[in-house]
Amino acid sequence: MDPYILAKRILEWVEEDAPLGDITSEYLVPEGTKVEAAIIAKSEGVVACLNDIVQALRVLGIDSRTLVREGESIRGSQEIAILRGDAKRILLLERTVLNVLSILFGIATKTKRFVEMVRRVNPRVRVAATRKTIPGLRELSKKAVAIGGGDTHRLSLSDAILIKDNHIALVGGVERAIELARSRKSFVHKVEIEVSNIEDALKAARLGVDAILLDNMGVEEVAQVLGELSRLGLRDKVIVEVSGGIDEDNIVEYAKLGPDVISTSSITMRPDKVDLSLEILRVIP
Amino acid sequence: MDPYILAKRILEWVEEDAPLGDITSEYLVPEGTKVEAAIIAKSEGVVACLNDIVQALRVLGIDSRTLVREGESIRGSQEIAILRGDAKRILLLERTVLNVLSILFGIATKTKRFVEMVRRVNPRVRVAATRKTIPGLRELSKKAVAIGGGDTHRLSLSDAILIKDNHIALVGGVERAIELARSRKSFVHKVEIEVSNIEDALKAARLGVDAILLDNMGVEEVAQVLGELSRLGLRDKVIVEVSGGIDEDNIVEYAKLGPDVISTSSITMRPDKVDLSLEILRVIP
Amino acid sequence: MDPYILAKRILEWVEEDAPLGDITSEYLVPEGTKVEAAIIAKSEGVVACLNDIVQALRVLGIDSRTLVREGESIRGSQEIAILRGDAKRILLLERTVLNVLSILFGIATKTKRFVEMVRRVNPRVRVAATRKTIPGLRELSKKAVAIGGGDTHRLSLSDAILIKDNHIALVGGVERAIELARSRKSFVHKVEIEVSNIEDALKAARLGVDAILLDNMGVEEVAQVLGELSRLGLRDKVIVEVSGGIDEDNIVEYAKLGPDVISTSSITMRPDKVDLSLEILRVIP
Amino acid sequence: MDPYILAKRILEWVEEDAPLGDITSEYLVPEGTKVEAAIIAKSEGVVACLNDIVQALRVLGIDSRTLVREGESIRGSQEIAILRGDAKRILLLERTVLNVLSILFGIATKTKRFVEMVRRVNPRVRVAATRKTIPGLRELSKKAVAIGGGDTHRLSLSDAILIKDNHIALVGGVERAIELARSRKSFVHKVEIEVSNIEDALKAARLGVDAILLDNMGVEEVAQVLGELSRLGLRDKVIVEVSGGIDEDNIVEYAKLGPDVISTSSITMRPDKVDLSLEILRVIP
Amino acid sequence: MDPYILAKRILEWVEEDAPLGDITSEYLVPEGTKVEAAIIAKSEGVVACLNDIVQALRVLGIDSRTLVREGESIRGSQEIAILRGDAKRILLLERTVLNVLSILFGIATKTKRFVEMVRRVNPRVRVAATRKTIPGLRELSKKAVAIGGGDTHRLSLSDAILIKDNHIALVGGVERAIELARSRKSFVHKVEIEVSNIEDALKAARLGVDAILLDNMGVEEVAQVLGELSRLGLRDKVIVEVSGGIDEDNIVEYAKLGPDVISTSSITMRPDKVDLSLEILRVIP
Amino acid sequence: MDPYILAKRILEWVEEDAPLGDITSEYLVPEGTKVEAAIIAKSEGVVACLNDIVQALRVLGIDSRTLVREGESIRGSQEIAILRGDAKRILLLERTVLNVLSILFGIATKTKRFVEMVRRVNPRVRVAATRKTIPGLRELSKKAVAIGGGDTHRLSLSDAILIKDNHIALVGGVERAIELARSRKSFVHKVEIEVSNIEDALKAARLGVDAILLDNMGVEEVAQVLGELSRLGLRDKVIVEVSGGIDEDNIVEYAKLGPDVISTSSITMRPDKVDLSLEILRVIP
Repeated sequence: MDPYILAKRILEWVEEDAPLGDITSEYLVPEGTKVEAAIIAKSEGVVACLNDIVQALRVLGIDSRTLVREGESIRGSQEIAILRGDAKRILLLERTVLNVLSILFGIATKTKRFVEMVRRVNPRVRVAATRKTIPGLRELSKKAVAIGGGDTHRLSLSDAILIKDNHIALVGGVERAIELARSRKSFVHKVEIEVSNIEDALKAARLGVDAILLDNMGVEEVAQVLGELSRLGLRDKVIVEVSGGIDEDNIVEYAKLGPDVISTSSITMRPDKVDLSLEILRVIP
Repeated sequence: MDPYILAKRILEWVEEDAPLGDITSEYLVPEGTKVEAAIIAKSEGVVACLNDIVQALRVLGIDSRTLVREGESIRGSQEIAILRGDAKRILLLERTVLNVLSILFGIATKTKRFVEMVRRVNPRVRVAATRKTIPGLRELSKKAVAIGGGDTHRLSLSDAILIKDNHIALVGGVERAIELARSRKSFVHKVEIEVSNIEDALKAARLGVDAILLDNMGVEEVAQVLGELSRLGLRDKVIVEVSGGIDEDNIVEYAKLGPDVISTSSITMRPDKVDLSLEILRVIP
Repeated sequence: MDPYILAKRILEWVEEDAPLGDITSEYLVPEGTKVEAAIIAKSEGVVACLNDIVQALRVLGIDSRTLVREGESIRGSQEIAILRGDAKRILLLERTVLNVLSILFGIATKTKRFVEMVRRVNPRVRVAATRKTIPGLRELSKKAVAIGGGDTHRLSLSDAILIKDNHIALVGGVERAIELARSRKSFVHKVEIEVSNIEDALKAARLGVDAILLDNMGVEEVAQVLGELSRLGLRDKVIVEVSGGIDEDNIVEYAKLGPDVISTSSITMRPDKVDLSLEILRVIP
Repeated sequence: MDPYILAKRILEWVEEDAPLGDITSEYLVPEGTKVEAAIIAKSEGVVACLNDIVQALRVLGIDSRTLVREGESIRGSQEIAILRGDAKRILLLERTVLNVLSILFGIATKTKRFVEMVRRVNPRVRVAATRKTIPGLRELSKKAVAIGGGDTHRLSLSDAILIKDNHIALVGGVERAIELARSRKSFVHKVEIEVSNIEDALKAARLGVDAILLDNMGVEEVAQVLGELSRLGLRDKVIVEVSGGIDEDNIVEYAKLGPDVISTSSITMRPDKVDLSLEILRVIP
Repeated sequence: MDPYILAKRILEWVEEDAPLGDITSEYLVPEGTKVEAAIIAKSEGVVACLNDIVQALRVLGIDSRTLVREGESIRGSQEIAILRGDAKRILLLERTVLNVLSILFGIATKTKRFVEMVRRVNPRVRVAATRKTIPGLRELSKKAVAIGGGDTHRLSLSDAILIKDNHIALVGGVERAIELARSRKSFVHKVEIEVSNIEDALKAARLGVDAILLDNMGVEEVAQVLGELSRLGLRDKVIVEVSGGIDEDNIVEYAKLGPDVISTSSITMRPDKVDLSLEILRVIP
Repeated sequence: MDPYILAKRILEWVEEDAPLGDITSEYLVPEGTKVEAAIIAKSEGVVACLNDIVQALRVLGIDSRTLVREGESIRGSQEIAILRGDAKRILLLERTVLNVLSILFGIATKTKRFVEMVRRVNPRVRVAATRKTIPGLRELSKKAVAIGGGDTHRLSLSDAILIKDNHIALVGGVERAIELARSRKSFVHKVEIEVSNIEDALKAARLGVDAILLDNMGVEEVAQVLGELSRLGLRDKVIVEVSGGIDEDNIVEYAKLGPDVISTSSITMRPDKVDLSLEILRVIP
């Protein structure tokens, strides 16, 4: 993420956390104290977007550098970044930076965990995120998913056509919906359609959409759809995505069936717990 | 939360989710279609801030009303709010509104769960949130905590003095830190100090701070501090908060010791899963 | 475009046009005067985004309605919308609204003109916009292109992969670039590559990209690429876009060759001239 | 324009062009690559506001410098500025910066062209812009006009009184309008009035306004007004501006009559085409 | 001021006053309580911009109306506006609205007081404000000055040329400064120059500037300048403004000399004290 | 205040003061001129937040440093800060910076004056500000109060419970209000209640609130409340604040009674006059 845009966002978050200043540091920390501080991991996890944050901190006048690489697995008690600058400013930024990083590390960690679970049974199946992300953190959340080895899926409502049940209902059926989307959309955008039964899945595949999303279908049903598509010679012509109610208790079962993509909000809405803290190492004379 | 301020925030989140419009609805939904839609709970949980969101939606031209009360427990498959308005706009707002509500319901649900766990062993102990909240959602997160029966704790760095390890290190000790805070702070603000050993805890209590936060202390240590405070006749003169690494696996143990407050980031950073969806009920002719 | 988001944008533009108020109306127009006014076309053109603007004006307290439909061709001296509200506010909004509409109508008009020129020689060729749009007007500009019958192309850098010369140079070649894009991108995004010679065009097509953009190639060269693609049986497997220096003087020539898409910045950066004015029809007693 | 304010604006435009990041560069360009790049003119034109943009780029961490001066005429294939910095960031800013510059160069180029056309027949006549400018680009557009040798005219509704037909209609006549404006306005502001017939023009001149704007009057009529003003000894006491429907096909005719100012939206709303591109020159080791 | 723009500003001020909500009302006022409240003057003063605020409050969902007119003198204990709406929202807006109104009433009150003092000795002398206004309140402050009978002077740096000592120093003298300004400025803008001695004043007047500002000159000196200008037949050809250190203790002295304008920051930076309060009249059932 | 947040605020204020640029400097000051300038005090006063402003100026590319310390008393004709940078930019920032500083110095100056008046009669009484501050300047205003030796009081509606007459009326009495506040508020927040008669004051003290605010009570009444509290042994258990209509003419009288806090809006809404100017010292070659 662009460091200047992220820096602007960080300032907004800091204003939420200290709308009228940090009265503790204001009263306690001597004006002009410079310090060196470390961001320290207190539990295991996968590094994500630390580089983005560190670059944004530089824009905000904090001389900082990373000690680990994006995607790297870290253990507890490990220093992951060093910050140097005005003590009050570092303490002001501390909580915001840690909150954001701990969410993003948690997303990458959970994504990697899911990717590895899936890979063990079927290395060709991709684990994807959804648009269920924490408001305000979309770009970074998607990046953390990618770092964890996942597929970002649509970044927003502006980058691909995904026809859902409500659209089909308003338009009057799967065919009409696909026809409308195709005739109006740009050549750079793909069309995916969400279906919840076998008939619609096959109908959509026959109509040549780029992808079909099997929504909230049981393992049995998904297997049936995949079997029918193979039988009809359509399996390679359409991307099959499985979604809805998928979490760590059932993702492997779906993965075994061999869809192209399994998407789940679990990785972005309930990230793994990754504990981070900031410690002042020393006062810079 | 003020509905006009929240409406502004919602628009910003929508711009993140549809920066250049919702191309699916744009191409599929006939201009001017009006619909009635329902927000439906698909799992159990506690209602929080639904009223705030519904009022903000009204500001945004969606005629909406709630079907449940704040704090009420809901079950799966239950309609919780009705929205009436332009179909495209409702679909545009859908994901943002559901993402926010599902986080807030999840916070209230987890808080209530923790409060009940604690209450069973000691009804006088309060469960409190921390400043570890999702960036951009502080005010609503804290409100959800309150709705779930928890204590909001500091809303930001601007509303109470909380002296932490980094402050003490920079200032040169517990006494000096407390003295500085007291002499400079406003009469409307309280002073709390974070300590990590028994000596500092007692020292702080003797110096008459409003509250002491026992950070990352084991159950044994906390028990010792509480015992010593009683012995010294200080137990009623200071609020004792326990924090650090507390989650559902150990909160009851701490609660049994009878501190005044147990605070945990778990309730705001890893909310319970509450599934919500939006369904168009009918087209309004 | 969402009327609330557009209304916010309009207010920002109004603040640019009247940063410290409209001193003429302030001194001349009696407080509380209500009027009915018309937006009048003073030249020919194609209506675009009038509906978006009118809905945004309603959000801003101006009771307004359109008299023409999106995409409709208008002639000079035609009333196209009626506004009712406070005289000072209508005069304050006047110039901003007319400036925006006249640009958008101009885009749709020029697009339609180009589409018709192309259609006469080859109805299957699409005319597309580029990312060369007026800063701040991207979403509406793209919508005006669509209304004029054009293809929006990428809405932004976030919705499709388009590998350009600078990327190829940095990465070290066409193959490597395509390989990287494919292995990292989401399944919902397409990959297009910009090439400027026949070899690269064929190489890219063989590697199975979704689209190739022939950049700044002469008519001869484009014909050669299309011929070779047919000969190799690749013509139907890849979308061929022609771009670079295309305007009304040469677009037909390219269209005759039968590429899939011809893109040009001319339609969004130098819209046709469409003159609009606002006239107060009467004071509402 | 202040570089910090312009930098802020540029970031907003970049957010429109890459709301969720530049997925192509993200996947292709190696993290940390530094490059030197050039902005290159691919057609003729007049340089305008390049210095403003270059200074804003410096604020955004791109080490950049100009190779040409403001107002200088450039030819095709000429390097006009050098940028050094992170490759991803330069590619992210590329389109926004080129779009803005190409509009501004186009404004200066067209202004200069008009000024020269007018100067040939009457060196005392000024060519002025209007408030018909691209929304969001007012300050820079006006500056480009000045660089091209034109007169900026009012920068906004806040800097001079310009009484228009709608005001006159609401107030009840030319005299009353002028009287109101004069009695209420500040001594630092001038009063101009728009008239569309000879009687009103003379009436206004007699009442001592600072300027009269002859709106949409034919060459004949304008000549008549100027003649009458001279006859009445008022010609030197009032600034005469001609406006409405003036473009390159008729501006010289009006210029010959010798008004003080000819204003036209053509220079800011339909700038000359000036093609610019950005080329990466080399990777900085 | 446009009510939608002002409403946006008010929300920003409210966010400063209640960044994380109004915890008192949140805990005390029953959800959904509707009330009727009055804004009450508790001291004398002149009404200014009450209408602007009331219209902005309507935009913010508070049904409100004024009981007094702009410019009207009010006495203590007088109801000046009635507000009806949600109790929590009215209490949330209370302090912001009262703070702003009390400043604006105070500006109008002081301006009127100064205007009357001046008028008694010389009815032709105008009392003007300066650019010394409270940051964020420029437009409303200037409007309050106008309501109090004063002259707004420049609204900003963008609406007239005012050459000051620092400019003259940088440019190298009064003549050069005036020459540069004249040759470059638009025909709609006036040129004023600040001088601090008699020679420069006369020189500037001879060069035909629109106005001269006599800065920090004593009564004697000002009298001399005015005398010399008359003697040279220039008195009617230039507006003479007196400024610098003028307050209620010396304004009359200067007024007696008969300059055209006396400007003072006193009216906008140290407004008269006007006390306002908000009282809930009744709960609306 | 964080220099990056303050810099952002300063840019917004500058945009108000120069929405379309500073046309005088634009036309007069040669591009690229670098200067050294001084901020000079032209009257006596107390320095406040100069350090904050100077740091924010550095963020905005102006190399600046202070010559005086926070809280220091300055005399007329004293240089207080040195700025080095681009001449146009310094002139652009000049007025905004001086306006803000002169307000903040004025607040600190008046606060210090009041504190000294009070201290002479009773050194234990604190002088506090209220929430009556200039909109947009809350954080800095409160900081200036602290620098002047005053107590900031509540920074906003989000940091302490202050039950006022309107709340009591809505809730139905002092007891109920206190009970509600206590049962719902966080343990980190204090409860204060505003009362206007002796009965309520004693009732509140007995109920154990943290502070009582005696609103608009005469000296007699306040004395009675203090006497009764002592008699009841409650004087040391509750903070007594006196407020309402307190200014320099009566503050000493109240101070003599020995309340804990006297709060007055006078120090923040009608700051002492402190005159500052900016002078260019020399052009930097």
